[in-house]
Amino acid sequence: MTPMLKFADLPLAVSLGDPAGIGPEIALKAWRARESLGLPPFFLVGAGGVMKDIARKAGETPIAILSSPAEVGVFFRKALPILDLGVSCRTDFGAPSLEGARAAFLSLERACDLTLRGEASALVTNPVSKAMLRRAGFRYRGQTEYLSARTKRRAVMMLAAPGLRVALVSTHLPLRDAPKYLTVARVSDTGETVAAALREDFGIAEPRLAVAALNPHAGEEGRLGREEIEIIAPAIENLRARGVKASGPHPADALFHKDMRRRYDAALCMYHDQALIPLKMLGREEGVNISLGLPIVRTSPDHGTAFDIAGEGKADPSSLAAALKMAHRIAARRGEREGRGGRGARR
Amino acid sequence: MTPMLKFADLPLAVSLGDPAGIGPEIALKAWRARESLGLPPFFLVGAGGVMKDIARKAGETPIAILSSPAEVGVFFRKALPILDLGVSCRTDFGAPSLEGARAAFLSLERACDLTLRGEASALVTNPVSKAMLRRAGFRYRGQTEYLSARTKRRAVMMLAAPGLRVALVSTHLPLRDAPKYLTVARVSDTGETVAAALREDFGIAEPRLAVAALNPHAGEEGRLGREEIEIIAPAIENLRARGVKASGPHPADALFHKDMRRRYDAALCMYHDQALIPLKMLGREEGVNISLGLPIVRTSPDHGTAFDIAGEGKADPSSLAAALKMAHRIAARRGEREGRGGRGARR
Repeated sequence: MTPMLKFADLPLAVSLGDPAGIGPEIALKAWRARESLGLPPFFLVGAGGVMKDIARKAGETPIAILSSPAEVGVFFRKALPILDLGVSCRTDFGAPSLEGARAAFLSLERACDLTLRGEASALVTNPVSKAMLRRAGFRYRGQTEYLSARTKRRAVMMLAAPGLRVALVSTHLPLRDAPKYLTVARVSDTGETVAAALREDFGIAEPRLAVAALNPHAGEEGRLGREEIEIIAPAIENLRARGVKASGPHPADALFHKDMRRRYDAALCMYHDQALIPLKMLGREEGVNISLGLPIVRTSPDHGTAFDIAGEGKADPSSLAAALKMAHRIAARRGEREGRGGRGARR
Repeated sequence: MTPMLKFADLPLAVSLGDPAGIGPEIALKAWRARESLGLPPFFLVGAGGVMKDIARKAGETPIAILSSPAEVGVFFRKALPILDLGVSCRTDFGAPSLEGARAAFLSLERACDLTLRGEASALVTNPVSKAMLRRAGFRYRGQTEYLSARTKRRAVMMLAAPGLRVALVSTHLPLRDAPKYLTVARVSDTGETVAAALREDFGIAEPRLAVAALNPHAGEEGRLGREEIEIIAPAIENLRARGVKASGPHPADALFHKDMRRRYDAALCMYHDQALIPLKMLGREEGVNISLGLPIVRTSPDHGTAFDIAGEGKADPSSLAAALKMAHRIAARRGEREGRGGRGARR
């Protein structure tokens, strides 16, 4: 019998990501730096063969093949714990394959299952190739959309870097479609999810939400677009009516200056690059992507597969390390709030 | 008879801007800091009454009413030179009026005339209230559009802050209209104007132009928008065929990180906030707006009228000072290139 673990002591499940990318390498590097970076125990849901290859490259770093996540505590200090998916997978770095994309999907599915079942405290996903996943039959826009479908909840994408959190109303849409996607309900519901997460997952008692405008100069009273008047301002009113400290619509070009950033806990952005341009200017190395509104905690590093440098030992594990720490903090906070002393199924 | 002045010795003409805003105050403050900031001689085209009021507020700063710009050299060391428009204008700071907007327009018109006639080396415009100008019968979108119409040239808006130059293909359009505005010709012609200005006005022998994508992830090979494939990539090919070192389309969220910024001399942006978000993050105090492609040199500070703080003595003249210095450098470079030793009419 394995001892009952306190919720905060559960390990984090890390998905493999595309095995031809840098995911396996940064997982290994993060494990090696676990003490200096103060990382919580985690395990990789992956292909043992791939990891052995990388561990060899990385100077015989030890790996431990688990039979269950409950064993992570035993092994984590001495080896990178792997829950082997049992699929074979060549390690042809930089050359994504259908086989690799299938392994990435199986790993995501399994890591999600383990987190939903309470065998892991949170899910941290390594980067995948969306194009390859699609060719391998994956029907979702990305990993976040898969998790939304699995848990039947709308996920809100938030990104955090030192000094800035941004959340997105529209995400992966052509720019010409982003304005059409905005509705009063979508802006206010997204804002409400963000405010709830800041309170509950980030421990901010009265979160301040700065809502960005869509148009230049916040639309200049309608002369440069009417979305501020017809959609964003009414959504801000809704948020205030629901008790959220929301300000705006702010001209987007004024919102991310240092002096402004101090005045809010998260910026609610209307489209992808409005959020990602300022975020990546501030923290390309330590940016973390967090999915809000899901019944499980999910974070991921804020970068892609980096096929161009995979297998060369150059990949930087900082963003994965930041994602692990953030997932752990949020899971611990949820665990405390829900009074979960031991494992249990999630809603 | 006034002595012939070398082109680089001609003074800069500064327009009044909206007299209820911070324009007059920052002109006065810039003049007071002329030595510590190393500013070139300039004069304000304005309402003498307004300036006397402000000069009094600012502790009896001396002003000198000119009969011609040729006198700037005589007075600049001892007083802020003013070419009086001869219009009366109350100084009701923070309360824009039709009277003030008319004075702002007259000043712009006169300063433009003087620069076109070669009595000033360049035009530096103070901020105006577009809404007020429109009510006063001004038919242009803004000062830049007025200068385009006057000189019958398409102006390209470039903004410069320490470490970053951005130029815009589309400027003041609702976001939903920006994608429709893009054409291969507009993107390549704008890029060509920018490259020519970097060579001729900024002295960069082989300017590197980084062209931004419009869509998230640069459109992901067409899945998130086709403008990269159909418009931006062909425009980059055009630019290369015309000898411009152009790269891209770059995902906009990757383009402004410190490491990337070193790799180009200007970023060519597709819409307003794509350029202004990163620029204002870097240099709200020292940002300068430059109109490229005009027969005259024109710069302006990168901020608005700031009616909220006008008359309180709080306005920061840094951006105006940066605009003055940049206009002077560009005018001197054009003067040298064109071998202009003395005054002469512009094309």
